[in-house]
Amino acid sequence: MTTTTQDLFVTTGLLSWEQAIKRATNFFDSCSDLEMQKEIVPGKNRVIYLLGHLTAVHDRMLPLLGLGERHYPQLDELFISNPDNPAAVFPPVQELKEYWTAINEELARHFTAWTPEEWLQKHTAVSDEDFAREPHRNRFAVLISRAGHVQYHLGQLVWFGK
Amino acid sequence: MTTTTQDLFVTTGLLSWEQAIKRATNFFDSCSDLEMQKEIVPGKNRVIYLLGHLTAVHDRMLPLLGLGERHYPQLDELFISNPDNPAAVFPPVQELKEYWTAINEELARHFTAWTPEEWLQKHTAVSDEDFAREPHRNRFAVLISRAGHVQYHLGQLVWFGK
Repeated sequence: MTTTTQDLFVTTGLLSWEQAIKRATNFFDSCSDLEMQKEIVPGKNRVIYLLGHLTAVHDRMLPLLGLGERHYPQLDELFISNPDNPAAVFPPVQELKEYWTAINEELARHFTAWTPEEWLQKHTAVSDEDFAREPHRNRFAVLISRAGHVQYHLGQLVWFGK
Repeated sequence: MTTTTQDLFVTTGLLSWEQAIKRATNFFDSCSDLEMQKEIVPGKNRVIYLLGHLTAVHDRMLPLLGLGERHYPQLDELFISNPDNPAAVFPPVQELKEYWTAINEELARHFTAWTPEEWLQKHTAVSDEDFAREPHRNRFAVLISRAGHVQYHLGQLVWFGK
């Protein structure tokens, strides 16, 4: 097997990630600031909440993948630890959109530079001992899992009736 | 790079697929026959429609992956070509659940037997010429894509208020 073949698995995973990001970005860009403040369906999360939630989850991928400190840890309190709350003070939509773009661009820089071997390194939430037994708990698994997480919320966003 | 390393990419993709199937199956199994007939949220698909839809899409993976003829082509008219329609006559829930289990078990038998090289073979919806230029249009890409499709609908199912 050549390195080219290894690269094909990585390319396939990356395409899945990139497509999910692109669909989410297109959706958020299609919403006015007013629409961003609306519930996707009555009684469920507002659109802005999912933008903040996805941004926070992707920001958490920096330490999880061994890429250094987070940029926006302040988002967790609003968008991960707590459910959507109209009484909470969220950052402006434009600011969240800039965070979303910036974190995905930073991740992409690393993702496109890694070799297949680097993709199969362990993520930081698994111990050396566990990783020796469970080598599938690697960076590639995080990529696939997080691409699926974006898809999960895309399934909800598509129900937004503007 | 050893074959073991190749296997790790496949294992990671397969785990993602299996987890998504398991979550969906657990959800459908948790619903009574009456709940299966309810809309997930007002004005959107009924739960039974998504069970039929996912089953039909997975059944279509047989020819797409070069695994032979479909088992349940009659599902397309009800669950793919048309949106949910309370006036349509659906198969009984129990029958759909059996199809869902059977098609996923059949796919799993092939998936766990394929070598990494077999995973990187082209799927049948791409021509030889296009595949030569775009080798990422392979069976592994179908696996990742369909796992993401299950996730997409799981994001909707989780909004069902029983």
